Amino acid sequence: MSELSLVALVSILTAGLTVAIGSFGAALGEGRAAAAAMGAIAQQPDAAPMLSRTLFVSLAMVESSGIYCFVVALILIFANPFWNAVSASVGG
Amino acid sequence: MSELSLVALVSILTAGLTVAIGSFGAALGEGRAAAAAMGAIAQQPDAAPMLSRTLFVSLAMVESSGIYCFVVALILIFANPFWNAVSASVGG
Amino acid sequence: MSELSLVALVSILTAGLTVAIGSFGAALGEGRAAAAAMGAIAQQPDAAPMLSRTLFVSLAMVESSGIYCFVVALILIFANPFWNAVSASVGG
Amino acid sequence: MSELSLVALVSILTAGLTVAIGSFGAALGEGRAAAAAMGAIAQQPDAAPMLSRTLFVSLAMVESSGIYCFVVALILIFANPFWNAVSASVGG
Amino acid sequence: MSELSLVALVSILTAGLTVAIGSFGAALGEGRAAAAAMGAIAQQPDAAPMLSRTLFVSLAMVESSGIYCFVVALILIFANPFWNAVSASVGG
Amino acid sequence: MSELSLVALVSILTAGLTVAIGSFGAALGEGRAAAAAMGAIAQQPDAAPMLSRTLFVSLAMVESSGIYCFVVALILIFANPFWNAVSASVGG
Amino acid sequence: MSELSLVALVSILTAGLTVAIGSFGAALGEGRAAAAAMGAIAQQPDAAPMLSRTLFVSLAMVESSGIYCFVVALILIFANPFWNAVSASVGG
Amino acid sequence: MSELSLVALVSILTAGLTVAIGSFGAALGEGRAAAAAMGAIAQQPDAAPMLSRTLFVSLAMVESSGIYCFVVALILIFANPFWNAVSASVGG
Amino acid sequence: MSELSLVALVSILTAGLTVAIGSFGAALGEGRAAAAAMGAIAQQPDAAPMLSRTLFVSLAMVESSGIYCFVVALILIFANPFWNAVSASVGG
Amino acid sequence: MSELSLVALVSILTAGLTVAIGSFGAALGEGRAAAAAMGAIAQQPDAAPMLSRTLFVSLAMVESSGIYCFVVALILIFANPFWNAVSASVGG
Amino acid sequence: MSELSLVALVSILTAGLTVAIGSFGAALGEGRAAAAAMGAIAQQPDAAPMLSRTLFVSLAMVESSGIYCFVVALILIFANPFWNAVSASVGG
Amino acid sequence: MSELSLVALVSILTAGLTVAIGSFGAALGEGRAAAAAMGAIAQQPDAAPMLSRTLFVSLAMVESSGIYCFVVALILIFANPFWNAVSASVGG
Amino acid sequence: MSELSLVALVSILTAGLTVAIGSFGAALGEGRAAAAAMGAIAQQPDAAPMLSRTLFVSLAMVESSGIYCFVVALILIFANPFWNAVSASVGG
Amino acid sequence: MSELSLVALVSILTAGLTVAIGSFGAALGEGRAAAAAMGAIAQQPDAAPMLSRTLFVSLAMVESSGIYCFVVALILIFANPFWNAVSASVGG
Repeated sequence: MSELSLVALVSILTAGLTVAIGSFGAALGEGRAAAAAMGAIAQQPDAAPMLSRTLFVSLAMVESSGIYCFVVALILIFANPFWNAVSASVGG
Repeated sequence: MSELSLVALVSILTAGLTVAIGSFGAALGEGRAAAAAMGAIAQQPDAAPMLSRTLFVSLAMVESSGIYCFVVALILIFANPFWNAVSASVGG
Repeated sequence: MSELSLVALVSILTAGLTVAIGSFGAALGEGRAAAAAMGAIAQQPDAAPMLSRTLFVSLAMVESSGIYCFVVALILIFANPFWNAVSASVGG
Repeated sequence: MSELSLVALVSILTAGLTVAIGSFGAALGEGRAAAAAMGAIAQQPDAAPMLSRTLFVSLAMVESSGIYCFVVALILIFANPFWNAVSASVGG
Repeated sequence: MSELSLVALVSILTAGLTVAIGSFGAALGEGRAAAAAMGAIAQQPDAAPMLSRTLFVSLAMVESSGIYCFVVALILIFANPFWNAVSASVGG
Repeated sequence: MSELSLVALVSILTAGLTVAIGSFGAALGEGRAAAAAMGAIAQQPDAAPMLSRTLFVSLAMVESSGIYCFVVALILIFANPFWNAVSASVGG
Repeated sequence: MSELSLVALVSILTAGLTVAIGSFGAALGEGRAAAAAMGAIAQQPDAAPMLSRTLFVSLAMVESSGIYCFVVALILIFANPFWNAVSASVGG
Repeated sequence: MSELSLVALVSILTAGLTVAIGSFGAALGEGRAAAAAMGAIAQQPDAAPMLSRTLFVSLAMVESSGIYCFVVALILIFANPFWNAVSASVGG
Repeated sequence: MSELSLVALVSILTAGLTVAIGSFGAALGEGRAAAAAMGAIAQQPDAAPMLSRTLFVSLAMVESSGIYCFVVALILIFANPFWNAVSASVGG
Repeated sequence: MSELSLVALVSILTAGLTVAIGSFGAALGEGRAAAAAMGAIAQQPDAAPMLSRTLFVSLAMVESSGIYCFVVALILIFANPFWNAVSASVGG
Repeated sequence: MSELSLVALVSILTAGLTVAIGSFGAALGEGRAAAAAMGAIAQQPDAAPMLSRTLFVSLAMVESSGIYCFVVALILIFANPFWNAVSASVGG
Repeated sequence: MSELSLVALVSILTAGLTVAIGSFGAALGEGRAAAAAMGAIAQQPDAAPMLSRTLFVSLAMVESSGIYCFVVALILIFANPFWNAVSASVGG
Repeated sequence: MSELSLVALVSILTAGLTVAIGSFGAALGEGRAAAAAMGAIAQQPDAAPMLSRTLFVSLAMVESSGIYCFVVALILIFANPFWNAVSASVGG
Repeated sequence: MSELSLVALVSILTAGLTVAIGSFGAALGEGRAAAAAMGAIAQQPDAAPMLSRTLFVSLAMVESSGIYCFVVALILIFANPFWNAVSASVGG
C-alpha cells in the first residue's frame, strides 16, 4: 500500500507549495498595482473613478493567476485523478 | 503504521511552509500598498477618504491571497483527506 | 506497479510547480503593467480610453504565458500521454 | 515509538521555521509602512492624525499575516492533531 | 520496462520546467514593455498609434521566446523521439 | 535513548535558527523605520514629538514580530512539550 | 540498453533547460530594449522611423542568442550525435 | 556517549550561526539608521541633539535584536538544558 | 562501454548549459546596450548615424562572448577530443 | 577518540563561518555609515565635529555586532566548554 | 581505464562552465560600458571620437577577462596536461 | 591517524573561506566609503583634509573586520589548538 | 594510481572555477569604471586626458585581481606542487 | 597514503576558491571607487590631484583585502603546514 501513501505525500507537498508560490506572486503584483493606483489618485483626484475601475480589473486579473494555483492545489487535494487511479488499482 | 506518520510528517511540514511563504508575500504586498497610501494622503489630503477606501479594498485583496495559504494549511492540518483515507485503510 | 505511481508522483509535482512558477511570473508582469497604466492615466486622463485598451491587450498577452503553464499542468494531470502509455503497458 | 518522536521532530522544526519566515516578512512590511508614514507626516503635518490611523490599521493588517504563522506554530507545538493521533495509536 | 517510464518521468519534469521558466521570462519582459508603452502614450498621446504598433511587434517578439519553450515542452510530451525509440526497442 | 537526544538536537537547531531569522528581519525593519524617522525630523523639526511617538510605536510593532521568534525559541529550549512527552515515555 | 536511455534522459533534460534559460534571457533583454524604444519614441516622435529600425535590428540580435539555445536544444533532440553513436554501438 | 557529543556538535554549530545571522542583520540595520542620521544632521544641524537621541534609541532597539541572538547563543553554549539532561541521563 | 556513454552524457549536459548561460548574459548585455542606444538617439537625433555605428560594434562585441559559448558547445557536441580518445581506446 | 575530533571539526568550521559572516555584515554596515558621513560633511562642513562624533559612535555600535561574532569564535576555539566536557569524559 | 574518462568528464564540465561564467560577466560589463558610451555621445556629440576610443579600449579590457576563461577552457579541452599525464601512465 | 588529517582538512577549508568571505565584505564596504569620499571632495573641496581623515579612519574600521577574519584564518592554519590537542593525543 | 587522477580532477575543476569567478568580478568592475569614465568625459571634455589616465590606472588595478585568479589557475594546471609530490610518491 | 592526497585535494580547492572570492570582492570595490573618482574629477577638475591621491590610497586599501586572500591561497599551495605535518607523519 506504500504507493498510495506516496501519492498522498507528494500531493500534499505539491498542493502546499503551489498555492504558496502562487499567492506570493499574486500578493506582490497586487501590492504593486494598488500602490500605483493610490499614487495616481493622489496625483489626479478627478480621475479617481476611472482609476478605481482600472485597479479593480487589474487586481482581478492578477488574483486570477493566484487562483489558478489555488484551483490546482484543491484539485490535487480533493480531486486527484492519480490518487483515484492508484487507489483503484490497489483496491482491485 | 509508518505510512500514517509519514503522511503526518509531510502534512505538518507543508502546512507550516505554506502559511509561512504565503504570509511573507502578503506582508510585503500590504506593506507596499500601505506605504503608497500614506504617501498619497500626504500629497493630496483632500482625497484621504477615497484613498482609505481604495487602500482597504486593496489590503483585503492582498490579504486574501495570504488567506488562501492559511486555508490550505488548516485543511492540511485539520481536514486532510489523504490522512483520513490512509488511516482508514490502516484501520481496516 | 511501482512505475505507474512513479509517473503519477512526477506528474503531480511537475503540474504544481509549473502552474506555480508560471503564475508567479504572470502576476509580477501584470502588476507592473497595471501600475504603469494607472500612472499613465493619472498623467494624461484624456488618453484613458486608449490606455485602458492597451492595458487590457497587454494583460491578455501576459496572462497568456501564465495560461500556457496552466494548460501544461492540466495536460499533465488529466491528459498525460505517458500515464496512458505506462498504464496500458502495465494493464497488458 | 520512533514514529512519535519523528512527528515531534518535524513539528518542532516546522513551528520554528514557520514563525521565523512569517515574522521576517511582517517585520519588513511593517518597517516599510512605518517609514512611509513618517515621511508622510513630515511632508503634511496637518494630516498626522489621519496618517496615524491609517498607519495603525495597516500595521494591524500586516501584523495579522505574521500572526497567522504564529498561530500555526503554536497549533503545531501545543495542539498538534497528528501528534495526538499518532500517540493514541501508539498508546493503544 | 523501467527505462520507458524513466524517459516518461524525465520528459514530464522537463516539459513542465521548460514552459514554466520560459513563461516566467516572457511575462516579465512583456510586463516591462507594456509598462513602458503606457508611460509613453501618456507622455506623447499623438504618437499612440505608432506606439501601439511598436508595442505589439515587441510583445510578439517576446512572446515568441516563451513559445519556443512551449513548443519544446509539447514536443517532449507529444512527439518525443527518444520515447519512440526506447519504446520501439522495448517493444522489439 | 537516542530519540530523546534527537528531539534535543532538533530543538536546539530550530531555536537558534528561529531567533536568528526573526531578529534579522526585525533589525532590517527597524533600521528602515528609524532611518525614515530621522529623515522626517530633519525635514519637519516641528513635528519631532509626533514623529518620535510614531517611531516608537512602529519600532514596538516591528520588535514584536522579532519577539514572537524569541518566545518560540525559548519555548523550544525551556518548555518543549515534545521533549517532556518523549522523555516521559522514555522514563516510563 | 540502459545506456541508450540514459543518453535519452540527459538529452531531454538538457534540451529543455537550455531553451528555457536562453528564452528567459532573451525575453528580459527584448523587454528592456522595447521599453526603451517606446520611451524614446515618446520623447522624440520625429525619430520614430530611425528608432524602429534600430529596435528591430536590436531585437533580432537579442533573439539570435535565444535562437542559439533553441538550435542546440533541437540538435540535442533530433540530431544528437552521441545518441546515434551509442545506439549504433548498441545495435552492433 | 555518542549522543552527548552529538548534542555538543549541534549546539556549537547553532550557537555560531545564530549569533552570525543576528549580528549580520543588526549591522545592516544600524548602518542604515546611522547613515540616515548623518544625512539628517547635515540637512538640519539645529535638530542635531534631537536626532542624536532618536539615533541612539533606535540603535539600541536594533542592537537588542542582535543581542537576542547573542543571548540564545550563550545559552546554547553555557547553559544548555538539553546538554544537562542528556549528560545526566548518560551519567546515570 | 559505459565510459563512452558517460562522456556523452557529460558532453550533452555541458554543451547545453554552456550555450544557455552564455546566451543569457549576451541577451542581457545586448538589451542594455540597445536600450541606451535608443535613449541616446531620442536625445540627440543628429548623432544617430554615429550612435548606430557604436551600437552595432558594441552588439558585435557582446555577441562575441555569447558566440564563444556557442563555439565551445558545438566543439563539445561535434568535435569532442575526449570522446574521440575514449571511443578509440574502447574500439581498440 | 573520534568524538573528540568531531567536536574539534565542528568548532573549527563554526568559528570560521561565524566570524566571516559577522565581519561581512559589519563591513557593509560601516561602509554605508561612513559613506553617509562623508556626504554629510561635504554638504554641511560646519557640522563636521558633530558628524564625526556621531559617525564614531555609530561605527562602534556596528563594530560591536561584528565583535560578538569574533568573541563567540574565540570562545569556540579557545574556551569551548563542550570540548572540555567531551575530552574529560574521554580522558576518564 | 576509468580514470582517463573521469579526467575527460571533469575537463569537459569545467571547460564549459568556465567559458560560460566568464562570457556572462564579460557580456554584462560590455553592455554596461557600451550603454554609458552611447549616453555620453548623445550628451556630448563633439567628444564622440574620444569616447569611441575610450569605449573600444575598455571593451578590449573587459573582453580580455572573458578571453582568459576561453583560453583556460581551450587549454582544458585541447592541451590538458593532466590528461596527457594520466593517459601516459595508463598507456605505460 | 585519519582524525589528524580530518582536522587538517577542515582547518584548511575553514581558513580559506573565512578570509575569503571577510575580505569580500571589507572590499565592498571600503569601495563604498571611498566612492562617497571622492564624491564629497568633489562637492566640497575645502573640506578635503577633514574628509580624508574621516575616510582613513573609516577604512581602518572596515579593514579591521576583514582583519578579524584574516587573524582567525591564520590562527586556524598556524596556531590551531585542536590540531595540537588531537596530534598530541595521537602522538601519545 | 587513483590518487593521482583525483588530484588531477580537483585541479582541473578548481582552475576553471577560479578563473571564471575572478574574470566575472573583473569584468563587472571594469565595466562599471569604464561606464563612469565615459559619463565623466561627456560631462567634462576638457578633463579627458586626466580621465583617461585615471581610467587606465583603475582598469589595470581591477584587471590585476582578475589576473591573480588567472595566475593561480595556471599554477594549478602547469606547476601544481601537490601533483608533483603525489606523482613522485606514486612513482617511488 | 590517501590522507596526503586528501589534504592536497582540499588545499587545491580551498586555494582556488579563496583567491576567486577575494578577487571578486576586490574587483567590485575597486570598480566602484574608480567610477566615483572619475565622476568626481569631471565635477571638480581642479581637485583632480587630490582625488587621484585619495583614489590610489583607497584602491590600495581595497586591493589589500584581495591580497590577503591571495596570500592565504599561496600559503595553502606552497607553505601548507598541515601538508608538511601529514607528509612527515606519513614519511615516518
